[in-house]
Amino acid sequence: MKYAILLAYDGTNYGGWQIQKNCITVQEKLEAAAQNLFGVKTAVTASGRTDSGVHAAGQVCHFKAQTEIPPEKLADALNMRLPEDISVLKSSAAPQNFDANRSAKRKTYCFRAYLSARRNPLKDRFSVWVKGGADIEKLRYIAGAFVGEHDFKAYQKSGSQVKTTVREVYSVNVETNGYRGSTDVEIYVCGGGFLYNMVRTIAGTMLYFAQGSLTEEDIRRSLEQGDRSAVGKTMPAKGLTLESVDYGFKLF
Amino acid sequence: MKYAILLAYDGTNYGGWQIQKNCITVQEKLEAAAQNLFGVKTAVTASGRTDSGVHAAGQVCHFKAQTEIPPEKLADALNMRLPEDISVLKSSAAPQNFDANRSAKRKTYCFRAYLSARRNPLKDRFSVWVKGGADIEKLRYIAGAFVGEHDFKAYQKSGSQVKTTVREVYSVNVETNGYRGSTDVEIYVCGGGFLYNMVRTIAGTMLYFAQGSLTEEDIRRSLEQGDRSAVGKTMPAKGLTLESVDYGFKLF
Repeated sequence: MKYAILLAYDGTNYGGWQIQKNCITVQEKLEAAAQNLFGVKTAVTASGRTDSGVHAAGQVCHFKAQTEIPPEKLADALNMRLPEDISVLKSSAAPQNFDANRSAKRKTYCFRAYLSARRNPLKDRFSVWVKGGADIEKLRYIAGAFVGEHDFKAYQKSGSQVKTTVREVYSVNVETNGYRGSTDVEIYVCGGGFLYNMVRTIAGTMLYFAQGSLTEEDIRRSLEQGDRSAVGKTMPAKGLTLESVDYGFKLF
Repeated sequence: MKYAILLAYDGTNYGGWQIQKNCITVQEKLEAAAQNLFGVKTAVTASGRTDSGVHAAGQVCHFKAQTEIPPEKLADALNMRLPEDISVLKSSAAPQNFDANRSAKRKTYCFRAYLSARRNPLKDRFSVWVKGGADIEKLRYIAGAFVGEHDFKAYQKSGSQVKTTVREVYSVNVETNGYRGSTDVEIYVCGGGFLYNMVRTIAGTMLYFAQGSLTEEDIRRSLEQGDRSAVGKTMPAKGLTLESVDYGFKLF
């Protein structure tokens, strides 16, 4: 039987999703929990990797297992075997041809920043401090520049090897609210797929523009000519959360 | 010169505000930063202690110092000497007769819980997981029972030694919103002063009532007769935040 799970994790203490040497990863914890539960080595496939320090509110994974546990109860059975910073929110039986990675139609990431004169430890775990203010209207305005099919080569981690750096972004939405003396900004980016660091670099570029350090012309140039000097800083991983993965049908 | 500071901290890794043996405290970090900045031992007085693991969004402290640094710049000078989970949000010159503790007119605490079937690591740092649902209308309704002057002896930590267990609560407000599949509850309690564990026990009692484990009659009895068997669980410290301290005048 194939199963799908909806997973949330605080990525602070993990070297990202994918199993690797020299650091603890979310996949390793999930596979260990599954192996403990099912009694056999169990591969767990996610919709995609999340980088070191990146969080997930709605990561989706699949695995195969032979078990008498009803599908919707697998979440609790796995959670008993997982550390507190990883939680299976939902579990269900998945179609036999379902693949958490290859079946994914689109993903939504959210990058969070809080704009204030001083650091606030109560906001600091899932959001990045940006010193000073920013023009929120400019932030909303520039969001539109990233929507559509573009060559995002200026927005990927330098040295990345991929077949093509063209990606389609379906939407970029900015939500803000003022709370505890700072402006909290959420930048939601929805797309079919992303390059390494792409969302964090889009977020940094939008914030530079809203703070007056980049012009609209710079940003157009970065998207049309791939000019890396015209993009903002890649923002820290802790502000990024994989919010949801859409498969075109109701999985849970 | 006397100075006042507005302080925020993530209390997770501290044994509360007050200096004590065998654990690291917020006061100790503040006094070390002040000593490093001013070159002499500097006592820092807060509006009140916060317990181990409790957070602050708006703790207020005072200290005396001889310095050429402009009052409003002291925040940055102290922050350079503080760990990242403690931050001075604002600093100002305070009246000579100002005492962060004795001048405080009222304090507002917020207890946060999220109600859902399963733990969510993205909510877990400043909020307590309450399994299952609760009747939010009942939660709002019972808030009124705690307002006014009551003998809160059933709501203090057992074994506490205080002159009187009568306290006046000025308001209890419940705010809720649904986000990421759970109901997030905020219980704001404003009063002149609180007994040990009082806010966390009020929150636990309100949640028990909203989940059907206590009746209104139980709660009336706990307040009128001090019946400890009629109150809910003292909720974990990590859900509690000292939101603000009011001195009856604008301090910052």
